[in-house]
Amino acid sequence: MKPHATPAEVEAVVERIRSLGLTPHPIPGTQRVAIGITGNKGALDPALFEGLPGVRDAIRVSQPFKLVSREVKEEDTVIDVGGVRLGGGRLAVMAGPCSVESKDQILEAAHAVKRAGASFLRGGAYKPRTSPYDFQGLAEEGLKLLALAREQTGLKVVTEAMDAETLPMVAEYADVVQIGARNMQNFSLLKRLGAVDKPVLLKRGPSATVREWLMAAEYVVSNGNPRVALCERGIRTFETATRNTLDLNAVPVLKALTHLPVVVDPSHGIGLRAHVPAMARAAVAAGADGLIVEVHPCPEKALSDGQQSLTPAEFASLMEQVRVIAGAIGRPL
Amino acid sequence: MKPHATPAEVEAVVERIRSLGLTPHPIPGTQRVAIGITGNKGALDPALFEGLPGVRDAIRVSQPFKLVSREVKEEDTVIDVGGVRLGGGRLAVMAGPCSVESKDQILEAAHAVKRAGASFLRGGAYKPRTSPYDFQGLAEEGLKLLALAREQTGLKVVTEAMDAETLPMVAEYADVVQIGARNMQNFSLLKRLGAVDKPVLLKRGPSATVREWLMAAEYVVSNGNPRVALCERGIRTFETATRNTLDLNAVPVLKALTHLPVVVDPSHGIGLRAHVPAMARAAVAAGADGLIVEVHPCPEKALSDGQQSLTPAEFASLMEQVRVIAGAIGRPL
Amino acid sequence: MKPHATPAEVEAVVERIRSLGLTPHPIPGTQRVAIGITGNKGALDPALFEGLPGVRDAIRVSQPFKLVSREVKEEDTVIDVGGVRLGGGRLAVMAGPCSVESKDQILEAAHAVKRAGASFLRGGAYKPRTSPYDFQGLAEEGLKLLALAREQTGLKVVTEAMDAETLPMVAEYADVVQIGARNMQNFSLLKRLGAVDKPVLLKRGPSATVREWLMAAEYVVSNGNPRVALCERGIRTFETATRNTLDLNAVPVLKALTHLPVVVDPSHGIGLRAHVPAMARAAVAAGADGLIVEVHPCPEKALSDGQQSLTPAEFASLMEQVRVIAGAIGRPL
Amino acid sequence: MKPHATPAEVEAVVERIRSLGLTPHPIPGTQRVAIGITGNKGALDPALFEGLPGVRDAIRVSQPFKLVSREVKEEDTVIDVGGVRLGGGRLAVMAGPCSVESKDQILEAAHAVKRAGASFLRGGAYKPRTSPYDFQGLAEEGLKLLALAREQTGLKVVTEAMDAETLPMVAEYADVVQIGARNMQNFSLLKRLGAVDKPVLLKRGPSATVREWLMAAEYVVSNGNPRVALCERGIRTFETATRNTLDLNAVPVLKALTHLPVVVDPSHGIGLRAHVPAMARAAVAAGADGLIVEVHPCPEKALSDGQQSLTPAEFASLMEQVRVIAGAIGRPL
Repeated sequence: MKPHATPAEVEAVVERIRSLGLTPHPIPGTQRVAIGITGNKGALDPALFEGLPGVRDAIRVSQPFKLVSREVKEEDTVIDVGGVRLGGGRLAVMAGPCSVESKDQILEAAHAVKRAGASFLRGGAYKPRTSPYDFQGLAEEGLKLLALAREQTGLKVVTEAMDAETLPMVAEYADVVQIGARNMQNFSLLKRLGAVDKPVLLKRGPSATVREWLMAAEYVVSNGNPRVALCERGIRTFETATRNTLDLNAVPVLKALTHLPVVVDPSHGIGLRAHVPAMARAAVAAGADGLIVEVHPCPEKALSDGQQSLTPAEFASLMEQVRVIAGAIGRPL
Repeated sequence: MKPHATPAEVEAVVERIRSLGLTPHPIPGTQRVAIGITGNKGALDPALFEGLPGVRDAIRVSQPFKLVSREVKEEDTVIDVGGVRLGGGRLAVMAGPCSVESKDQILEAAHAVKRAGASFLRGGAYKPRTSPYDFQGLAEEGLKLLALAREQTGLKVVTEAMDAETLPMVAEYADVVQIGARNMQNFSLLKRLGAVDKPVLLKRGPSATVREWLMAAEYVVSNGNPRVALCERGIRTFETATRNTLDLNAVPVLKALTHLPVVVDPSHGIGLRAHVPAMARAAVAAGADGLIVEVHPCPEKALSDGQQSLTPAEFASLMEQVRVIAGAIGRPL
Repeated sequence: MKPHATPAEVEAVVERIRSLGLTPHPIPGTQRVAIGITGNKGALDPALFEGLPGVRDAIRVSQPFKLVSREVKEEDTVIDVGGVRLGGGRLAVMAGPCSVESKDQILEAAHAVKRAGASFLRGGAYKPRTSPYDFQGLAEEGLKLLALAREQTGLKVVTEAMDAETLPMVAEYADVVQIGARNMQNFSLLKRLGAVDKPVLLKRGPSATVREWLMAAEYVVSNGNPRVALCERGIRTFETATRNTLDLNAVPVLKALTHLPVVVDPSHGIGLRAHVPAMARAAVAAGADGLIVEVHPCPEKALSDGQQSLTPAEFASLMEQVRVIAGAIGRPL
Repeated sequence: MKPHATPAEVEAVVERIRSLGLTPHPIPGTQRVAIGITGNKGALDPALFEGLPGVRDAIRVSQPFKLVSREVKEEDTVIDVGGVRLGGGRLAVMAGPCSVESKDQILEAAHAVKRAGASFLRGGAYKPRTSPYDFQGLAEEGLKLLALAREQTGLKVVTEAMDAETLPMVAEYADVVQIGARNMQNFSLLKRLGAVDKPVLLKRGPSATVREWLMAAEYVVSNGNPRVALCERGIRTFETATRNTLDLNAVPVLKALTHLPVVVDPSHGIGLRAHVPAMARAAVAAGADGLIVEVHPCPEKALSDGQQSLTPAEFASLMEQVRVIAGAIGRPL
């Protein structure tokens, strides 16, 4: 639609699409609204829409992902998370422990990352673990502790939902619902997220191509929730010197292909505490819209991922380094 | 336990384990019962159990997977699927279309694969698809058609469950519940499978190591369902000449590490119709307990995976080749 | 050319090609000669050749590899190695130690593999080792020992050349010159092999696609040596349970794309002694033209690759298993 | 050795090592000399050396790579290339076309990259190409053109040697001899490089682990040439959206394991012109000591790698971005 298209004009286009038996997907932007169309079997004639009032042009999307593509919406999507912006010109920093373990632990972590300049608190209450015998998270108790930490610090809460059953509860407590790497192609869960009224942070599967990842995002958006951010967290390769191979190539590739914000997780990506700051700096220099970093008050006692968690002091130092890089490329925190 | 341990002796050991605050997992075998123990924090003293009547010995399992390991149970697990055996000395063949598409299609496929010698009918009613715009399966309608095909042919039905919500319904219709590659680490779903009274065919995730896969099986078994078979279906590598890289190395590696049956899916594994028979033969020669093969009455019209589905005639020819190899190594169909 | 084209007709076509400023590559076959043409910038008009006496037809090769493709030559290439055939209907078995270590070792190995039914002796005199501090081979001394073993047993010798400098000496002693995985894209060496009057066994690079591998073979053939066999020896993937991932998918894929013989190395492929026989059986069932297997009189004392070498007794048992499979598919040793 | 150890003290230690039948490897540093020892079968007693004058301490190296490890030499190696430093605090930028194609092309490229601030000119005279039918480089003619460009611009020349035969000639013209990714484990060539009196830029093999790469560098250093720099250029993964997967994780991992300089090649790494600048920025932020970037006066006419080459104007813009990041982290060009 044109920048100043009226709501009535938008509505008229939506109606026209419906009248053709197709599904309209209005995607709001700061400057103009785009309206994706799905449900067509073959190509549609652009002339069906181009004459309508307020329509700028009708574009055929060449990519298999439609609603998330830059072809449908040129400008960056900016997700407003209760006043904190994810995407657009600023750098959002999310930090906190892998798992919520106790009240003291999460509050200490929250205050520490807040002091250092983070705007989101991360922490898992439901934990997908390779072994059934490992710590599986505090469940609702953990969510309550995250809410308490939010209350005390003002940080926004990012936490993972593992299944449709617990999704409503997680969505109630979370400001952003995280979907873990192993659930990236849990299509049933993705469809459910379409109906959730919270932004989604969709982690890349360990062996997912960029295109498969964008198709997973398309599941969420086409089911009704346009507020999706993507999170690169390392792919699986032959290299064993690092836990995963953080694929920063995905950052510029994604920024060209999609309007969604791109967050990078250097903690899982490289998996080695000493090297997390270098990868965080590199992620910002590559153009990431956000970082998500594991910080634990006492990493050696962490119930999960201790070897890749920073101490509060290390995180504060990382934030200084990140600020320098972010400042140099004109992307303030 | 010793081969002739009485039910009362088994029960006494189970009670002893419980009395220590631990969880017993009796794993029935054709010759003797093994009892796995989980819930311990550190190593247990074998002397706690070795003196009990009927106990042969108490073994510490060195692998991270416990109940599914050969250390716990030396002899092959044989899963009885309504009279058809999966595992042990025979080769089980599962065949049918990728998706159930219509009554005619599934019945035609079922009769054809039955004629050629398959004992299981495969076919998806719930389809995990990379794109939200692709055919997603006929859902319960598809399950009913599978049941109809079973009624007409006597074939056992293998079909996929995609989520906890539809699992009860799938389990009601299916003889074996398949878990797809992308759900291999959907831990919430794996836990639910522990309570299901049907065997599970657990496909390998496209980038899952053998150890992660066995840990996934451990989720199901430790939650109460010991009837799990593993299905190799190709891993993701750099090679683009084939759809996936069928990893037959996994067959002997698994047979050494676990007592669970191992099935191979050459159709997804190599993904090219012309080469499915070669990989099916190789799988049998490598020691697989079963094959699962895509067969469609009319592959070029298939709604999914047509390029890797065999025609009924091609399948009949494949069965001849497989019979020769299976016979040569003393593993009859 | 037609099956009964005369040498004079072949020569006339070769001349015609030269007269156009192009390079002719006659590729002899048991039934008819094919003549590849390289050096053209764009497509050539088939009419240039189709009228010539003895020409059956003129085909444009669609693949980037030309002379090695099935399009140029439909029938399998059979390499005659001093009376022993590689390719075509029989299964060739090559066996012996990773490295030649001493006279006793190589003679003992040679007699053992001969007794068990192998027709080629493998053994490295020049060893590419990851570490400069590891055993680098006996060099010419090793070649002489291989020649002695050949004299005593009648086995043909397969041994590796690592560089252009030692290639002439290796080619003098060897019946088949092996090119190792790490040299698969050593293009200078490949060009030199074009001028060598011995068959070449070209191992697949650990991360080479099938197409890159065929392009490497094309280097040898287009430089004048049409006697090339390909050897699958495992690719590098994320899996760490095995040394490499033996990619048997490559066997049917290659058999469709190229007329060159395909040999499989299960020893490097899976890298675990206990599982070599399963993979050897599977390779034969998949359609391999040959096997190359590491056998050492005393694997635990081997200077290299002991963990994947079979004992003579294990090899004899493997040969029994392989014979059964080979017999079942009509491919005698 | 201690910082102020005299040459005579160093010599005495070297002699002592020789007298034990071992090989000494003095590794000069700006502050102090380290002396690596190889040739020992088992562990040596540190007391053999600790009492000698000028010796600071005797350390057992735990890594399989010895001379290149940080354990042997803590401080960064700085390679002096005719007055231009590679390694240490500054960022070295190498740029130029993939292949030398003509006098005009290489001179235009050289002047352009010089103007934009590069200090090294890259360009291949010997080209390893996947296909034997692709442009293979201008050979000595190309080397002469590089020398001419050096004369006109003062840039140092980095160019590839492909084999032992042409190595002496390449080394005569080059200021830095590049070893390509496919030759990273060409051990014969690596040994020869030990005797070359020019620094070596050793590219990572497409599927080489960091440890294998360091072992390859160890081949060069242990054969006598300590002036080796490592070049990350992308690894092979399952992802097809990029040509390779530039593995920036390797940068901090290497900086911790080795004292050798680390250069990053974003051009081959991501393989897409539009995204080279983002990866160049990220490489610098991750801590690289240098960049090597493909620049061609007219990429669309390039005989190789046009799709990943920058125009001179794009390169000048990249240099501006890189300067900002380099400045921000206190690493000037």
